[in-house]
Amino acid sequence: MPEREFIEYIRELTARNEAACPWLEVGVGDDAAVVRTPGAGRLLVTTDMVVEGVHFVTGTGMELVGHKAVARGLSDIAAMAGRPLFTVAAVHLAPGSTDADARALVRAISEAAERYGAPLIGGDVCRGGGALNVTLTAVGTPGPGGVVLRSGARTGDAVCVTGRLGASIRGRHLTFAPRIREALALGEGFDVHALIDVSDGLSTDVLHLAEASGVGVRLQEAAIPVSEDAETQARQTGRRPIEHALDDGEDYELLFCLPRKQARALVERGLEGLEVTVVGEVVKGSESCLILPDGSREPLRAGGWEYEV
Amino acid sequence: MPEREFIEYIRELTARNEAACPWLEVGVGDDAAVVRTPGAGRLLVTTDMVVEGVHFVTGTGMELVGHKAVARGLSDIAAMAGRPLFTVAAVHLAPGSTDADARALVRAISEAAERYGAPLIGGDVCRGGGALNVTLTAVGTPGPGGVVLRSGARTGDAVCVTGRLGASIRGRHLTFAPRIREALALGEGFDVHALIDVSDGLSTDVLHLAEASGVGVRLQEAAIPVSEDAETQARQTGRRPIEHALDDGEDYELLFCLPRKQARALVERGLEGLEVTVVGEVVKGSESCLILPDGSREPLRAGGWEYEV
Repeated sequence: MPEREFIEYIRELTARNEAACPWLEVGVGDDAAVVRTPGAGRLLVTTDMVVEGVHFVTGTGMELVGHKAVARGLSDIAAMAGRPLFTVAAVHLAPGSTDADARALVRAISEAAERYGAPLIGGDVCRGGGALNVTLTAVGTPGPGGVVLRSGARTGDAVCVTGRLGASIRGRHLTFAPRIREALALGEGFDVHALIDVSDGLSTDVLHLAEASGVGVRLQEAAIPVSEDAETQARQTGRRPIEHALDDGEDYELLFCLPRKQARALVERGLEGLEVTVVGEVVKGSESCLILPDGSREPLRAGGWEYEV
Repeated sequence: MPEREFIEYIRELTARNEAACPWLEVGVGDDAAVVRTPGAGRLLVTTDMVVEGVHFVTGTGMELVGHKAVARGLSDIAAMAGRPLFTVAAVHLAPGSTDADARALVRAISEAAERYGAPLIGGDVCRGGGALNVTLTAVGTPGPGGVVLRSGARTGDAVCVTGRLGASIRGRHLTFAPRIREALALGEGFDVHALIDVSDGLSTDVLHLAEASGVGVRLQEAAIPVSEDAETQARQTGRRPIEHALDDGEDYELLFCLPRKQARALVERGLEGLEVTVVGEVVKGSESCLILPDGSREPLRAGGWEYEV
């Protein structure tokens, strides 16, 4: 079944739990859960797998696998404008992997976790049958601007994205840095109404954000920042670069909504040295569309990554 | 390489992180990590995998797999005398599993988590190549008696165990209830100096506890509470029932050290309806031994489960 359908099933299952958990502020459905701990502060929690054959090809270096596992988890903390605290990791080794592989993988996880400010404080390791996989659980706290959800976009907001999009498969999906510092600066210095990371693909994640916020988004095709990788990839696939930028996913850039004036300031000055582009606007209603360079429009379709589970 | 050697490697790797983390009270090496969150209370954190072919045989019902994943994680919180707060789960489905399997597994995880007071608040799911596995991350807070580590056993303490041990492979390794309530009562009402759950096997876990505490343990073979399963299993394996009780593991009972007088009270009254047995005493030095029924002694050897990773 499609991942989305399965997540809906989990959401229904856990809804009962949520009713019994007044301390659970945000459950299944955003980038991370938000928990108010008893006698303690609020925590952000996310758990994510990277699986051989799904998130990386067989033969990928252990350094890259470990890095991706950590960066992916921390991107979910960034997508809540959170500050990472710590990580734990469970490593399932493939039968043929060597001791050197196992050490290199755990070292890569530990180093990436330290680099991004979320030290690895525990874990589990096992050698079983089949694919290598790593489950990374990250815990954080709200940043100085508080938690930013997917669901707060307001009519009239500008829709912005950091960096350039498309064809992360050429390498960036393994090497990207989670936008932690940038998201913290965004939360602290701007009235960000909604925030998500671009993991499933711009088109799909814009729809996630719009649906969660109960609004529509007009996405301007001509405005979308296309990566060099997307240009290169397009020459090989015969597709247009913009299609890669719209639908490929795993960019792990920040997609967010805020007042237009603030967006202009960000476009001019950048965000912590990172390029920011206005790619659309938030409109009333529940219809999202893609405005083509000739001014015509078509319904925005979720062309991005959808796992089958 | 043996799991123990690998854990030592991870401990070295993360030691550097720990030095940079004054808020990390207990890192790799106990049943759960202990973290002091900024402006917040202390958290217990543990992450554990259950893997097809390692922790359960192929064909085990999804209800049992889901239950075991949760119970195992929460047993680690109990082993710190902690109170569970919440859980997150990552599910890696085998290629041949059906949608019904996937739903049943997640439902089982959610139900077990709710039953044991640690609601499932988030997760990830993916279908990859190879073995089914579930990674369960559990977060808790210290119980009313504070955190109890493995490392506080004192010379003269009685060494106690709850329940009966051995041959959990006959079913209990899937169906056991984590000793959460019992561990909380223990922490609150008694001067428990050291606590661990019996996961690797009594002999191995006694040695873990002794090593962490810098003491020896004299284990009385005749005192060890042998389960009916161990009696049954022994008739099939030709081994003695006591060998199963000593070495099989996955009992998930509580093993703990406290003053003798308090131990006697526990043996008389039980712990939350559960049988408690004194199985030995803590002695000076670093040598642990097994005292046989005829009064002779032999060095205690870690006969329990040791994963190769």
